Amino acid sequence: MNGFTFYSPTYFVFGQDEENNVGHYVRRFGGSRVLLHYGGGSVVRSGLLERVKKSLERESISYVELGGVKPNPRSGLVYEGISLCRKEHVDFVLAVGGGSTIDSSKAIAAGTVYEGDFWDYYQGKPIEKALPVGTVLTIAAAGSEGSPDSVITNEDGMYKRGATGEGIRPAFSILNPALTQTLSPFQTACGITDIMAHLFERYFTNTQDVEVTDRLIEGLLLTMIHQAPKVIADPNDYQARANIMWAGMMAHNNCCGVGREQDWSSHDIEHELSAVYDCAHGAGLAVVFPAWMDYTMEHDVMRFAQLATRVWGCHMDFAHPEQTAKAGITALRKFLKSIGMPGTLHELGAGEDKIQEMAHKACYGDGRSGHIGGFVPLYEEDVSRIFRLMI
Amino acid sequence: MNGFTFYSPTYFVFGQDEENNVGHYVRRFGGSRVLLHYGGGSVVRSGLLERVKKSLERESISYVELGGVKPNPRSGLVYEGISLCRKEHVDFVLAVGGGSTIDSSKAIAAGTVYEGDFWDYYQGKPIEKALPVGTVLTIAAAGSEGSPDSVITNEDGMYKRGATGEGIRPAFSILNPALTQTLSPFQTACGITDIMAHLFERYFTNTQDVEVTDRLIEGLLLTMIHQAPKVIADPNDYQARANIMWAGMMAHNNCCGVGREQDWSSHDIEHELSAVYDCAHGAGLAVVFPAWMDYTMEHDVMRFAQLATRVWGCHMDFAHPEQTAKAGITALRKFLKSIGMPGTLHELGAGEDKIQEMAHKACYGDGRSGHIGGFVPLYEEDVSRIFRLMI
Repeated sequence: MNGFTFYSPTYFVFGQDEENNVGHYVRRFGGSRVLLHYGGGSVVRSGLLERVKKSLERESISYVELGGVKPNPRSGLVYEGISLCRKEHVDFVLAVGGGSTIDSSKAIAAGTVYEGDFWDYYQGKPIEKALPVGTVLTIAAAGSEGSPDSVITNEDGMYKRGATGEGIRPAFSILNPALTQTLSPFQTACGITDIMAHLFERYFTNTQDVEVTDRLIEGLLLTMIHQAPKVIADPNDYQARANIMWAGMMAHNNCCGVGREQDWSSHDIEHELSAVYDCAHGAGLAVVFPAWMDYTMEHDVMRFAQLATRVWGCHMDFAHPEQTAKAGITALRKFLKSIGMPGTLHELGAGEDKIQEMAHKACYGDGRSGHIGGFVPLYEEDVSRIFRLMI
Repeated sequence: MNGFTFYSPTYFVFGQDEENNVGHYVRRFGGSRVLLHYGGGSVVRSGLLERVKKSLERESISYVELGGVKPNPRSGLVYEGISLCRKEHVDFVLAVGGGSTIDSSKAIAAGTVYEGDFWDYYQGKPIEKALPVGTVLTIAAAGSEGSPDSVITNEDGMYKRGATGEGIRPAFSILNPALTQTLSPFQTACGITDIMAHLFERYFTNTQDVEVTDRLIEGLLLTMIHQAPKVIADPNDYQARANIMWAGMMAHNNCCGVGREQDWSSHDIEHELSAVYDCAHGAGLAVVFPAWMDYTMEHDVMRFAQLATRVWGCHMDFAHPEQTAKAGITALRKFLKSIGMPGTLHELGAGEDKIQEMAHKACYGDGRSGHIGGFVPLYEEDVSRIFRLMI
């Protein structure tokens, strides 16, 4: 177990109807002039945006609006938001939506108080200062409601890159599981896959003696595997939604990932896919992760076997641990298929013709030095081979 | 799963030698005039107090000292600390020690800025305001380094009572597992028992659909059961100490206890024991918890059976689940004995003559209304019976 610092000062408000109190929390965390940032029509159609506005109005908090966030949020809208915040003297950014809206809000919040180009942060500069951000979460997936991270796609070159820093941990996040009940089964399954991927990225490590975080990650994965089929079968299952929603936060605020090297190459690989094909992030991860596991399994068969036995309930084959490890990966593929996720590039709507280009960009694009990943360092040829395992 | 709020803004710094940076963190969190609060000789003998002072001096932070905190910390020293802080214009309380020192520091920090008697907080008034508190932790046990709680014994009547409130969450906590290597096996085992008790108090609930927190608690218990024998066998096992230390924080900052009713009657019962016999809190819990389990098992046999199978590795007896439930309690008793904990009142150094008095005080003392506990409400006669199961 390595040394670390851990700081998660977000105030979480969890439960039915809590979005109606959002004005109170904006006020509590210093907001008086708000950018209300959101995506497309669903928050309007469901009446959620209206309820949020009413709550702000009850607290006499003024706001300007910026809608139009798309999945895989783009730099163009971020620049627009920064201009708007400066012009309107905004002092608080309120995200109403999912990970894309929250990530876009974080970028705007950081960019507004930064003299340079906000993209500097997405090339490695840590974000120390930003306007405070609040969130009303509408999908359990990205974990951005509790994380210091943001991922944005730069339209100049279509690079999808992450930024991080304590400045963009949300001041508060409102988690009402009922708001996720209107998601389609596909969106729900994408969220579930993303949550599980955040856990896998932390699980596969070379750091020794990390039982406490291993066990916490395994506990969250067991929860996901048990609760996911319930919400796929019945989208209105509030209790299953609630369990998944808290698991999604815990999976990514890093309390279960501290003190250990993490991997993150599957996310890097998926980011190339969704930057080129604009596929849903979770669906992309469903295709990438099993292929990445096939490719890296031999690096630490016993870790894969541990996951297989503790999480997937596989019997340990002590004479042939690699068989157990493989059975775990098979179980993951079966699970992802059962919740409606794609299993191949083709099912994802991606082609094979850009594999080399994506592999190159993953390893060299936008300032990277030739490899990705912490568990097994992956070079361009490795990434290319992993892509071919997805065909 | 119930609605809840969760707010844990403590900055955790984890790893070797981090106590040498304490001055930096005091400065970061607004301290310039510090009360340095600690217990007896061990922090002096080990040189820890000297290292802490040097770090403060390097940052030109002035301090006044108040040592002498005892296990089951007393109100007398709290009053003394409050007077000292007011007289010396202290703006930050730094605890160097374990749960007792941290709890005493929290009481002083709250009392200093409160016009009334600090004991009001220990009779149910939530603590909203306090001087900022920092901690350098020397034992993994109470979880006070990450919790909004404090327990103090009032010398006027020997009532041991808890206070809670966001005002006393530590601003920062320094967790260096190496500092716990000098603890005796008995102290270490008391800490382990306390951590596990914090998990049990949360695990036994009547709230339905709480898989995510069940699984997290189970993961932490599995960690404790696996790591505890290592530190008992080798007190210098840094890695086992590290796993236990993070588990101890996670067990009690409540991220694994949100959204569910909790119990806490075993703590209430133990508080009577340690108020009267001044026994170590962890040792008291080792005697109380199995007896409490015997007494309450029938209330929810399946929950006990779940714990037995998932955590203690017992085989589920589907025809007789109560046998599995009992096997889990037996496994707990065996485990506690294996790490050197007492199993009876006699082994704890407590007598039988005060049972009725303690049972009465637990249920009625200091403003309580006649019963304790959330899983099974316990009245005076129940508590008395539970005490008799400890003979």
